[in-house]
Amino acid sequence: MQALILAGGSGTRFWPLSRRQRPKQLLALAGEHSLLETTVARLAPIIEPTSVWVSTTEVLAPAVRAALPEVPTAQVLVEPVGRNTAPAIGYAVRSMPARVREDVIAVLPADHPIADEETFRRVLVTAEDAARDGDRILTLGVTPHRAETGYGYLELGPPLPGAAGLRRVARFTEKPDADTAARWVAAGNHLWNAGIFVFRGSRLLAALAVHEPEISRGLEAMAQDPSVTEAIYPTLPAVSIDCGVMERIDQLATLPLDCGWSDLGSWQALAEMLPADAAGNVLRGAVTAVDSTDTLVLAEDGHVAVLGVEGLVVVRTGDTVLVMPKTRAQDVRQVVDTVAAEGRSELL
Amino acid sequence: MQALILAGGSGTRFWPLSRRQRPKQLLALAGEHSLLETTVARLAPIIEPTSVWVSTTEVLAPAVRAALPEVPTAQVLVEPVGRNTAPAIGYAVRSMPARVREDVIAVLPADHPIADEETFRRVLVTAEDAARDGDRILTLGVTPHRAETGYGYLELGPPLPGAAGLRRVARFTEKPDADTAARWVAAGNHLWNAGIFVFRGSRLLAALAVHEPEISRGLEAMAQDPSVTEAIYPTLPAVSIDCGVMERIDQLATLPLDCGWSDLGSWQALAEMLPADAAGNVLRGAVTAVDSTDTLVLAEDGHVAVLGVEGLVVVRTGDTVLVMPKTRAQDVRQVVDTVAAEGRSELL
Repeated sequence: MQALILAGGSGTRFWPLSRRQRPKQLLALAGEHSLLETTVARLAPIIEPTSVWVSTTEVLAPAVRAALPEVPTAQVLVEPVGRNTAPAIGYAVRSMPARVREDVIAVLPADHPIADEETFRRVLVTAEDAARDGDRILTLGVTPHRAETGYGYLELGPPLPGAAGLRRVARFTEKPDADTAARWVAAGNHLWNAGIFVFRGSRLLAALAVHEPEISRGLEAMAQDPSVTEAIYPTLPAVSIDCGVMERIDQLATLPLDCGWSDLGSWQALAEMLPADAAGNVLRGAVTAVDSTDTLVLAEDGHVAVLGVEGLVVVRTGDTVLVMPKTRAQDVRQVVDTVAAEGRSELL
Repeated sequence: MQALILAGGSGTRFWPLSRRQRPKQLLALAGEHSLLETTVARLAPIIEPTSVWVSTTEVLAPAVRAALPEVPTAQVLVEPVGRNTAPAIGYAVRSMPARVREDVIAVLPADHPIADEETFRRVLVTAEDAARDGDRILTLGVTPHRAETGYGYLELGPPLPGAAGLRRVARFTEKPDADTAARWVAAGNHLWNAGIFVFRGSRLLAALAVHEPEISRGLEAMAQDPSVTEAIYPTLPAVSIDCGVMERIDQLATLPLDCGWSDLGSWQALAEMLPADAAGNVLRGAVTAVDSTDTLVLAEDGHVAVLGVEGLVVVRTGDTVLVMPKTRAQDVRQVVDTVAAEGRSELL
């Protein structure tokens, strides 16, 4: 099996630690190593680094290569520009040698922690078999343990022949309301869409040819004559792999993943993941906390002191510090937009 | 008239901006210049810098001299060790040349902002006349406009002959409870003890000889033979000028000062003094504030971003940042003590 890790993201949710040149996947948020390195290390028992491919951007490629010296340099693929995941995955797969494209490929986000790695690998190997033997496309779904309204859900369809637990995906549903989410979680007939896909490369390219012919034609043209890449790639429809392919194909298969997955979508999510002290504080770096509770303090550079605070996030870097209630962690983008509007581009 | 400015203080209320080597009086908290510089500049129309004396500590003396180049170097006097204000004032006065000691001396804290400088100077000149002509000792009192429980109060006694408004001080009272303070402020028969004294130097030394004979004998011995200073000064009773002299002398006089005085005793007091924006925020330095109210942010070095916070104090220096609710501004010392206990002495 091959792995294709999508590492081109550039979000703002972990500003000020994350920056344009150092996005979330390059940060060691949940441990000693970056999320990207952890993603590769987690695969190693079933997919060697020499079978790992990474899709990233030109600006991030040097940092990605430095973080993953065991991945062959030529397998760190650069998206000419960001055009969403259908072009990115298609371009990466089409760039692989023909014999690799015939192999099963697991597409994985670079920035999602997983607590139970053994379960994760076991399910991935089961998915590999289903993709190889049945020539299926699978989108793995995370078993939900709370009524999250911020995720997309997969509605489970009838069982499919082959591996135990293999089900057809009946429907994709984006971000349900809280009541709906609670009902789904209780009923056990939905999974979270975690952006993990398993398929033969050739099968995915065939599906693109059917459902996104414009992307498919572009990929073929660039494969025949790489010199047209700069001209063609930016014109490809900027469609996600979910909308462009997964939601359209018959017999999309899924397997449930119950492996302590998190998309680690905010400072609050990080605070919930890391071990807290008796007062509910998560303190990282040089921090002095007096009479404070339920607070995340991260001092990447320099020292931070908090006195008498509750439910805050405080993140200090060499050049800035962010202070907000945990309840506003979803709104960090507002700060980043304001910082940009103020012309402080050195902080972005 | 001469001025003796007490600039040896080393508090923790403005940590992390204030440090051992850069205490409050050396900070430009309320304007462009340090509180010490402002104190000297405020006097200039009535007391020239060549008639200004400063009492400070050995560690602060270089910074004080650098801040006040117009004050003769020899008039920046160094306390051998900190032994409270009675020894410090006595030592400074006894160190002055005999003709200067015969002059009227105004003793002033180095770190108190005053909004109405003209009124301040007018009252000081009136006090000078009372001290010179009546050979009186005066302690000026600030007219209270709120029921502050954190200050000492002077109870007004009967009028004294001489300048209009001159009253005897009936009693000193430390930190009353809130009801008592409210009653006093309503009745108008109390003033705040602001640590501003006016007397002839020789009169003060005579009072010390009566009420603090041990200090007086020590001062004389050191004046006769300066080589014994290091041995004697640390043995002097560590008594405040209020307890040692002011509370004991008959006919202590006062004049009311109604001049926008503040002791600027905390970050909260600073926030109240500085002009706020429409959201009640006071933002100094490179600050990005989103959806925040009633917050003081001071970025001495680097940038600070706040999102969705209310009633906070955030102070960033090159090496640390302090975050606390304004309501805890009186407790900064707890942070400083904890930082010290953690062995982070470079932050003190």
